[in-house]
Amino acid sequence: MVSDDFIVTPWHVQGEIDYDKLIKRFGTQKISDQLSERIKKIAGDDHFMLRRQIFFSHRDMNKILDEYEKGNKFFLYTGRGPSGHTHIGHLIPWVFAKWLQDKFDVNMYFQLTDDEKFFSKQNLKLEETKKFAFENALDFIALGFKSKNTKIIIDTENIQMLYPIAAEVAKKINFSNIKAVFGFTNDTNIGMIFYTSLQSAPCFIEEKPVLIPLGVDQDPHFRLTRDVAPRIGKPKPALIHNIMMPSLEGPGGKMSASEENTTIYTTDTPEVVKKKINKYAFSGGQPDVAQHRKLGGNPDIDVSYQYLKIFFEPDDMALKKIYDDYKSGKMITGELKAILIEKINDFLKDHQKKREKAREQIDKFLFKDS
Amino acid sequence: MVSDDFIVTPWHVQGEIDYDKLIKRFGTQKISDQLSERIKKIAGDDHFMLRRQIFFSHRDMNKILDEYEKGNKFFLYTGRGPSGHTHIGHLIPWVFAKWLQDKFDVNMYFQLTDDEKFFSKQNLKLEETKKFAFENALDFIALGFKSKNTKIIIDTENIQMLYPIAAEVAKKINFSNIKAVFGFTNDTNIGMIFYTSLQSAPCFIEEKPVLIPLGVDQDPHFRLTRDVAPRIGKPKPALIHNIMMPSLEGPGGKMSASEENTTIYTTDTPEVVKKKINKYAFSGGQPDVAQHRKLGGNPDIDVSYQYLKIFFEPDDMALKKIYDDYKSGKMITGELKAILIEKINDFLKDHQKKREKAREQIDKFLFKDS
Repeated sequence: MVSDDFIVTPWHVQGEIDYDKLIKRFGTQKISDQLSERIKKIAGDDHFMLRRQIFFSHRDMNKILDEYEKGNKFFLYTGRGPSGHTHIGHLIPWVFAKWLQDKFDVNMYFQLTDDEKFFSKQNLKLEETKKFAFENALDFIALGFKSKNTKIIIDTENIQMLYPIAAEVAKKINFSNIKAVFGFTNDTNIGMIFYTSLQSAPCFIEEKPVLIPLGVDQDPHFRLTRDVAPRIGKPKPALIHNIMMPSLEGPGGKMSASEENTTIYTTDTPEVVKKKINKYAFSGGQPDVAQHRKLGGNPDIDVSYQYLKIFFEPDDMALKKIYDDYKSGKMITGELKAILIEKINDFLKDHQKKREKAREQIDKFLFKDS
Repeated sequence: MVSDDFIVTPWHVQGEIDYDKLIKRFGTQKISDQLSERIKKIAGDDHFMLRRQIFFSHRDMNKILDEYEKGNKFFLYTGRGPSGHTHIGHLIPWVFAKWLQDKFDVNMYFQLTDDEKFFSKQNLKLEETKKFAFENALDFIALGFKSKNTKIIIDTENIQMLYPIAAEVAKKINFSNIKAVFGFTNDTNIGMIFYTSLQSAPCFIEEKPVLIPLGVDQDPHFRLTRDVAPRIGKPKPALIHNIMMPSLEGPGGKMSASEENTTIYTTDTPEVVKKKINKYAFSGGQPDVAQHRKLGGNPDIDVSYQYLKIFFEPDDMALKKIYDDYKSGKMITGELKAILIEKINDFLKDHQKKREKAREQIDKFLFKDS
């Protein structure tokens, strides 16, 4: 891997991602100021993730808005591969989806792909990924979704509904397509080869166009879906992509649910959060306080600052002050970390309460075959 | 294709099949006289399809009998790819399965793979293959199965039960395996690539070994299943293979449901049967009656005689008389065809009555998820 190289696939993210390059590589569109303004205008509100280009790229977002302005609603769809507990990075598209749902008053589907994680992780059993699916669903519900317009799909539980749609998609995709898009080989198991058609299926669950807020690593699946859609008489899914939450250990790779120490889980205790941030969060500061005061820190590579920017400090003024103080050397790394720890733990205290409450609500959210 | 060459895959049978060569090619076992005797002894009865080597090959049939003699029952499983109406050739393993079920008092599962035929036939819609699945189920029920120990599985209807089992299988099969066994290429659609794991699934529906009576063209699927079974902690399926029903047009290829004129459907009227046999049934007779009387016919290549042998004349004495009379020239082709036409139409008259009655019974047979 050369220094400027990076890998982004649905199952593997590695290296420091150059998002402008990624846009070119994937063939998506950058979210222009104009598009950002347009969303803001139609939504009647702004979202810091849009303002800060946490959502940075899209496919056909303008089409979705054109139709919406004509009175033709879309629906929302996103999901999660339940290989372990939810981490903070997973919440980005869910939080943004909730905002979109509130502003545009549309239906939402959330897919938990227990089969995918079973196929892709050698050591995981199907019962385990299914158990995590239910655990992850709690995090989703805790964000405030309402069961009246939001349904949770679990692949092995809802295969009766998904499979006939997936079959239509699967008939139009061959192994060459799969190799080209995912880099699969002759050693790839046939569950993984088929799986993408199940991730496509929820795109066609309603007779409306779909908008998918998602981590950009999932884009390849929907590139295939977009090729297939017109061939089965369906609208192409529109996408809006967020950047990957960096690992605590810093630039290069997304936060991964399988590497415990470099990841903040929604189930972490305040002590664990404190320890992880203090011990592992990559710092943009100087080797010692004296130098830091003199030279200042680099918030642009500091993971604690990135976490505040991406998720935990929605207030632009407050964020700017942290940026400036850290850069000037007025704020040292310990202080920056303390701010983040407090923000995370405040968030998790509330989230974990809602998460437990969600255990009683989950049944209403589960997609039921008619 | 050289003259002695032939192709046998689950989706394509071509050429004149040399069944001894096929046994070597597939790596199965010939049914020896000894095994045939053993089955007869344990069953307490004989079946003409076994006696005449219509069932000619097997895998692990002795193991099934060993366990049965120890008091450990097996269960039966066979199926059909519903690409059209049922033809006579499809009935061979079903009739034999019914006999096995009666003699061994075991459960039976019948799988209708509507998804497979959708994936493999460019021009068929899923609604069409599903419609044919229900039509084919009527033929199966008409053979006298009882709903108390027999269940019908339709892939798209029972995917909720099948998929988790198929997923266990799929995780253990890669594209190299699929290429080697089925000759698939990079152009094969991912539905087809995944499908074999769904044909494996019913093998593991009960915690007992399974015995599968089936056309030998389906063997490749279960070669894969047999490789996978021990790796998921399950017993290998045992198989007992029948030869393919020849096309009306004669040696070379099996009867195909997609070539109307060379196939007798269970839904054909007596007039249609008469016309098809008289017009298309390949004859082993001489060019004219005078020569036939003098030289005699060749029953071994005569399709009408083969149909009697394989399905329509269970009485060995009666069959032998036809053989001898045709061979000596005493019986001419028109007479032989007339015998077959009468046999088929007698069978179909009764079958079609039972087939209509099955419409009211089908619901009791359908596998219901608990």
